[in-house]
Amino acid sequence: MREKLPELMLLAFAEAKAAAERGEVPVGAVIVDASGHVIAAAGNRTLELKDPTAHAEMLAIRVAAQTLSSERLIDCDLYVTLEPCAMCAAAISFARLRRIYFATGDEKMGAVEHGPRFFNQATCHHAPDVYSGIGESQGQELLRSFFQSRR
Amino acid sequence: MREKLPELMLLAFAEAKAAAERGEVPVGAVIVDASGHVIAAAGNRTLELKDPTAHAEMLAIRVAAQTLSSERLIDCDLYVTLEPCAMCAAAISFARLRRIYFATGDEKMGAVEHGPRFFNQATCHHAPDVYSGIGESQGQELLRSFFQSRR
Repeated sequence: MREKLPELMLLAFAEAKAAAERGEVPVGAVIVDASGHVIAAAGNRTLELKDPTAHAEMLAIRVAAQTLSSERLIDCDLYVTLEPCAMCAAAISFARLRRIYFATGDEKMGAVEHGPRFFNQATCHHAPDVYSGIGESQGQELLRSFFQSRR
Repeated sequence: MREKLPELMLLAFAEAKAAAERGEVPVGAVIVDASGHVIAAAGNRTLELKDPTAHAEMLAIRVAAQTLSSERLIDCDLYVTLEPCAMCAAAISFARLRRIYFATGDEKMGAVEHGPRFFNQATCHHAPDVYSGIGESQGQELLRSFFQSRR
């Protein structure tokens, strides 16, 4: 049976599905401010923008920083459908995000619970609180159906 | 005695000095294509752009990808004045850069020879050849004088 997901994770999944429809690996991200207002929502656009840095989390962080007019997203939280990679984990740290919630772990490229486990490194100077597995089965299903359709 | 630096590293240092004059932590980066032509040169702009992802390497990678109209910078090389952090190291890997040359190691935030040593992680799927210490003393001096002037 599927778990009922928080509204903000559903919004991140909607961004991921929109990315899949654009032919991008389906990952979506949402950032909320301290009051819980959505200040950024983005999906992966690496192919469309021809930009290897245009992961969902990076785009959301950049929009949120513009919205708040600050390179630090103090007391803001990130919802993302896939475990962040090392690039995104370091950007999350630099942006001083308070909490991150992610749906599915990523054995191949994840850097939070896999690989470099960036937030546990001595060279990581700010680590958010991490909540994982929120929509894990939905996240796995989305990735599986995307990669099956491309074979 | 100072070593004579390759022209491309001198260009990266010029970008770093320009960043310092803008009040940014002085880091500069240059990307050349397979023929050795400069296709991107950038300095750190995190404060000016209010963008925590706007490290010199990230900006250079994004410009180079636009220039080549591809999210992969095949056979391109990066010159940078400071050891890349985890965010930039992962972006370098995603961009498939061939070689990176950096001046000074970064014990606090570096992710190539320090911290997560990203290119040695099993979750790193492309690692460039790395050449370090090219202008090490100049790089150290630039950072030292920048941070001294801000005290």
